[in-house]
Amino acid sequence: MKKYQLMAPGPTPVPSQVLLAMAQPMIHHRTPEYEALFIEVRAGLKALFQTAQDVVPLTCSGTGAMEAAVVNTLSAGDTVALIQAGKFGERWTEIAKAYGLDVVLLTAPFGETVAPGRLAEALRTTPRIKAVLTQHSESSTGVLHDVRAYAEVARRTDAILIVDAVSSLGIADLAMDRWGIDVVIAGSQKGLMLPPGLAFCTLSEKAWAAARTSRLPRYYLDLTEERKFLLKNEARFTPAVSIVVGLREVLRMLAAEGLPNVFKRHDRLARATRAGVEALGLELFARATPSPALTAVAAPRGVNSEKIVAAYSETHNITIAGGQGEMKGQLFRLGHMGYAAEFDVVIALSALEQVLADLGLPVDFGASIRAAQKVFAEKH
Amino acid sequence: MKKYQLMAPGPTPVPSQVLLAMAQPMIHHRTPEYEALFIEVRAGLKALFQTAQDVVPLTCSGTGAMEAAVVNTLSAGDTVALIQAGKFGERWTEIAKAYGLDVVLLTAPFGETVAPGRLAEALRTTPRIKAVLTQHSESSTGVLHDVRAYAEVARRTDAILIVDAVSSLGIADLAMDRWGIDVVIAGSQKGLMLPPGLAFCTLSEKAWAAARTSRLPRYYLDLTEERKFLLKNEARFTPAVSIVVGLREVLRMLAAEGLPNVFKRHDRLARATRAGVEALGLELFARATPSPALTAVAAPRGVNSEKIVAAYSETHNITIAGGQGEMKGQLFRLGHMGYAAEFDVVIALSALEQVLADLGLPVDFGASIRAAQKVFAEKH
Repeated sequence: MKKYQLMAPGPTPVPSQVLLAMAQPMIHHRTPEYEALFIEVRAGLKALFQTAQDVVPLTCSGTGAMEAAVVNTLSAGDTVALIQAGKFGERWTEIAKAYGLDVVLLTAPFGETVAPGRLAEALRTTPRIKAVLTQHSESSTGVLHDVRAYAEVARRTDAILIVDAVSSLGIADLAMDRWGIDVVIAGSQKGLMLPPGLAFCTLSEKAWAAARTSRLPRYYLDLTEERKFLLKNEARFTPAVSIVVGLREVLRMLAAEGLPNVFKRHDRLARATRAGVEALGLELFARATPSPALTAVAAPRGVNSEKIVAAYSETHNITIAGGQGEMKGQLFRLGHMGYAAEFDVVIALSALEQVLADLGLPVDFGASIRAAQKVFAEKH
Repeated sequence: MKKYQLMAPGPTPVPSQVLLAMAQPMIHHRTPEYEALFIEVRAGLKALFQTAQDVVPLTCSGTGAMEAAVVNTLSAGDTVALIQAGKFGERWTEIAKAYGLDVVLLTAPFGETVAPGRLAEALRTTPRIKAVLTQHSESSTGVLHDVRAYAEVARRTDAILIVDAVSSLGIADLAMDRWGIDVVIAGSQKGLMLPPGLAFCTLSEKAWAAARTSRLPRYYLDLTEERKFLLKNEARFTPAVSIVVGLREVLRMLAAEGLPNVFKRHDRLARATRAGVEALGLELFARATPSPALTAVAAPRGVNSEKIVAAYSETHNITIAGGQGEMKGQLFRLGHMGYAAEFDVVIALSALEQVLADLGLPVDFGASIRAAQKVFAEKH
């Protein structure tokens, strides 16, 4: 018997108590019961997003919420600046092009980030830039972009800062209001440890002002219309009821742990994973600040990383992820977000030692665990 | 103790075995396990939609799939004909206007339908009509539009026929290929007896041809792009994994019952409900062919139907639905679709007798049940 372990950078495992809450009989979304549920969820989401603004839930994947951010704040022909240093940065570009936006690309090689000074320079030389689009955690490369510094730059201009926080919400600190971020996007299947199918979009006053002049066509993802229903504790269209039921459980769990502790837990898991990986002589793929959501590891010289992913799955019944797009074969990714704790890291690293040894690489068995344990033993 | 009963026209109850299948540990969507799941689901969906075409699943509500049908087959300035005789017909109009389409409205009073001859006439006098948009079951009024006859008309022209089958798929016979329907849209939370959050869009060859020249902007709901992944048994974006897991169970249940029997069951439940309601002296709201998914009942003279809906809920812990929009107060709606069987109708009617008596109306107790039982006792 090999116990199944889901250790990909999303979807992440769902706690049993959440699965069982969602397995309760279906309720209708236009009832007092749903209203009570939604009132609690609304309040919990504001705390989680660290904002006084309402968080608009959307029944879609994270990509749908990315599109919602664009089509609700911009108009065809508008110019946007894009931080592009990974697969999800490329997704911003694809969305921008699909809607006829002019793009000022700020690229960095995969594994790196874009210095805030470059964004400041772009906003200075191209003052018509209406929005800056970025990821917080770029989960294809394992890099955390410095959205706090981007916000410092953008808030002094007319441009709004749109942050894809799909793999950072409830994982890395992201103080929307305090840092001055204008749009935050998230999904259910990462830090929120829920099944995929629910996404979120939150707008600052500056972003809602942009929404009032935006002329891109939209209907299903119209945030202004959705907010009218939200303010009545309703959903405009039939929502993903069962995921909202699960969300209430998750928000209670996160509130009980305390948001600062949630961030510390992820930071500790990430540092332990990195320490373990490096103790085995492997190199991180990220050469900029690493994301606390996942660790992207460069494939050992001469090894196709797909072999490592396959060995995790076939020999150990563990799902991790490989490289996406042109990064395929070059890296593998270990998720440690959401419903993840210290001994999950011990499992991931133990398996890694076995996998490397099976591939004929020299392994000092236990070395990665020793390194991780030292991180866990630190006084909090 | 009052047992909770969900008898609204969607979301509908989810069978326990499906809830428990969905409560299993989360799996990743880029794994051999998901691929095997998806292959089975793909085949099952084709059988359910009665088509040789692939059914494209989308992570969204039914309205998202309605929008997908429009933005993937049309271009700004195109002319479309809309069958509008209810709240969901109005939704087509809203979507068409959001995307800059010219609309030829074919309206009927709520509770009625649009004769196929009127559609034929519109297509004759306005040959530039590119698409005809309609519901199959208009669940705001309880009317079943004759989409088979609409298809007979539309297939002789260049226009494609787009059918919202959200509350008819797996409920009323809808032979997409045989009848010549070009786009069929459905959702997870009606005949498919799943939680809301997954929707479907299926295109005929004629509709895929229209997709090749369509120029409306789209990204998340791009069916051409999604199909590329579907043909590899993948999803383009993270799908609503748990609902897809539930879908496999539901498709097995429906296949075991047999699609003709599924339609017969719904027809019997609907006829029994109508017979019961009429035995109590109430009138159906639908004055055209009634939908087998739900029964819309006109409020008794002098009674606001919201009172009936409230009494069902407060006194009997049963969720039914009232009238939407300008129909509010005029009707109440009893759902009998999806995971619904004969004795659910008995419960709904028993409660109705109690509710009417509590409102001070004269009730011949048992009369509605007698009428329903006679329908159930018919030789199948």
